[in-house]
Amino acid sequence: MAEIRVAGTGITDFGEHDRTTRDLFAEAGLAALDDASVPAEDVEALYYGNFIGELAERQGHQGPLVAEAAGLDCPSTRVESACASSGAAVREGVQAIHAGADVVVVGGAERMSNMGTEGATEGLATAADDLHEVRAGVTFPGAYALMASAYFHQHGGGPEDLAHIAVKNHDNALVNDHAHLQQEITVADALDAPQVASPLGLYDACPISDGASAVVLVSDDYAEENDLSAPVAITASSQASDHLALHDRESLTETPATEVAAEAAYQEAGIGPNDLDCIEVHDCFTIAEVLALEGLGVYETGEAIGAARRGETTRDGELPVNLSGGLKAKGHPVGATGAAQIVELTRQLDGTHPRAPDDASVGLAHNAGGTVASVTVHVLEVAE
Amino acid sequence: MAEIRVAGTGITDFGEHDRTTRDLFAEAGLAALDDASVPAEDVEALYYGNFIGELAERQGHQGPLVAEAAGLDCPSTRVESACASSGAAVREGVQAIHAGADVVVVGGAERMSNMGTEGATEGLATAADDLHEVRAGVTFPGAYALMASAYFHQHGGGPEDLAHIAVKNHDNALVNDHAHLQQEITVADALDAPQVASPLGLYDACPISDGASAVVLVSDDYAEENDLSAPVAITASSQASDHLALHDRESLTETPATEVAAEAAYQEAGIGPNDLDCIEVHDCFTIAEVLALEGLGVYETGEAIGAARRGETTRDGELPVNLSGGLKAKGHPVGATGAAQIVELTRQLDGTHPRAPDDASVGLAHNAGGTVASVTVHVLEVAE
Repeated sequence: MAEIRVAGTGITDFGEHDRTTRDLFAEAGLAALDDASVPAEDVEALYYGNFIGELAERQGHQGPLVAEAAGLDCPSTRVESACASSGAAVREGVQAIHAGADVVVVGGAERMSNMGTEGATEGLATAADDLHEVRAGVTFPGAYALMASAYFHQHGGGPEDLAHIAVKNHDNALVNDHAHLQQEITVADALDAPQVASPLGLYDACPISDGASAVVLVSDDYAEENDLSAPVAITASSQASDHLALHDRESLTETPATEVAAEAAYQEAGIGPNDLDCIEVHDCFTIAEVLALEGLGVYETGEAIGAARRGETTRDGELPVNLSGGLKAKGHPVGATGAAQIVELTRQLDGTHPRAPDDASVGLAHNAGGTVASVTVHVLEVAE
Repeated sequence: MAEIRVAGTGITDFGEHDRTTRDLFAEAGLAALDDASVPAEDVEALYYGNFIGELAERQGHQGPLVAEAAGLDCPSTRVESACASSGAAVREGVQAIHAGADVVVVGGAERMSNMGTEGATEGLATAADDLHEVRAGVTFPGAYALMASAYFHQHGGGPEDLAHIAVKNHDNALVNDHAHLQQEITVADALDAPQVASPLGLYDACPISDGASAVVLVSDDYAEENDLSAPVAITASSQASDHLALHDRESLTETPATEVAAEAAYQEAGIGPNDLDCIEVHDCFTIAEVLALEGLGVYETGEAIGAARRGETTRDGELPVNLSGGLKAKGHPVGATGAAQIVELTRQLDGTHPRAPDDASVGLAHNAGGTVASVTVHVLEVAE
């Protein structure tokens, strides 16, 4: 089975854009092809993550649309798994190469700021169970607030622990030119911020962002034949699902989809959580970073809440988490997020990230949809 | 590379349902698993086509939702390619088996009737280019009317030729218990019907339907080891894209995406159009059947318009087209359509369809999104 290499990456600035998704994806896609030195005519498929184009732009069927915008003439498929849309797109691309393709582009885009905060919140809510959650008033800030409250109740910790996660991720975003929020904050800032859904405040939540990301994936044979510089390999790609509605889960503080996907990824890559040098996890809210770290087996249950406060996940810590700034500060243009994690992780592993750990060789990307009802996990490694 | 078998199929009645997509898909998915005699725990992935759940039900993220409803605990991904959504889902499932899986479920569902005719027409329009088509008033009846007018101008033919296609597909639907429109019509009925978008009348258009479809795909190894009855194999799966907007195409009457996907499928299966015994093509409008037959190489350019009138594509003709009733009369619950074609074609090849040609051994399914901007083609053959 072909080993899969990251041949090139592209990303737009994340933030507020007065541009369509087709335009945003064109920028990211063209940048990725240019970075890869791969001609557009070699691309055999595009997998494109987008979440709510129908609501944001009245534009569905974006697969062919964004392919054309990025100069690609190939089968193009839109994949939607809520906030894990482009994580799922990356996985489809990996699978396409395992099934015989040599070159695929994966990525995603989202336009959200034009919907306004209320419109975007309503749009995001379509990732929850409309019949049993949304109609009862559960939007995502509310759902994650429930999860945070349950966590504090079961395991201890509190808003100050979450504030340390926000401070860390904002600090990381300071050196990410593409980040939406390049703004240093303090624990006091976070604790003093307006409440969004108690116990979560403004700085516990990611912003509403527009943006796009793209990655060129190639088989190792293609990389070799074309003499590409592609030092980072994707050595595992996994996905899992869970009940969409929180009330159908056994626990509000465990995320089985993360656990199942992580276990499968570790097995495929032949590694364990202790082998990781840097990771990007899905921190749509600060509490989500905690749940992710525990679901991934990086921390025991109840232990991740203090990780940032103790400095273990900061840029100088044992395992830097979300060196990109995470969704929290890099921003979260939903359909772009999963592939953006691959873009950022590649930079951390190929040595071009200013704060990458010395000799980082193994990274992991964790992308989650809804209240962790869809999860993709990718393991990236510096190839031998 | 594994040969892929259709192990089981399931489909709901197509028509107006006061039921959610999750409920519709549960019926189809459970029926397919039952038909396949495959336990739910063996299913490694679900690929699910849905087009406008966000607009119809304010429900995105349907992958995990419908997996749960159908009793599946596996990675589940929603694929959207407008009216080719579940054709694309079938292709992802085929690819998953080529990449190493043994059992996947593919399918789709759509709920549309609750949107009303105007709402559904607006929803469907999100498959066109919002900036350059929809804002100029182009909905799909309008777009296909432009294509029909251009065809008549370039190649001759007229509404009466299209009427014969409608009559044929309505006739075929009479023996399809799942069809939305089980109603015999005459050429005069079609010609006398109200105009929808000149030159297309009411009987040139498919109805707005709700429904779901599902197919269990397995590797031949799995079929053999588990002693499954799975006589029909998928021997080719291809996909192509085109410019989303009609005005970007070189011709209004040619469909390069169909041509490219067909050529790839014929090559993969080692067959040509003359080898086909029965086919299901994407006849969202009668003119679309004409364009499909020419794009697939079954007819030369300008020749397919008279095929139904000449009796060549009727159930007793040389190559029966849309024995299921087609989208025209079976109905077109958008996300369900592509996989429904596989359901129907399987029945035509395994001998359970009452009007299947004697000794039919090779079939083809053609699913198109937008004005043929996304196309999937699948070749099904009775395995040796």
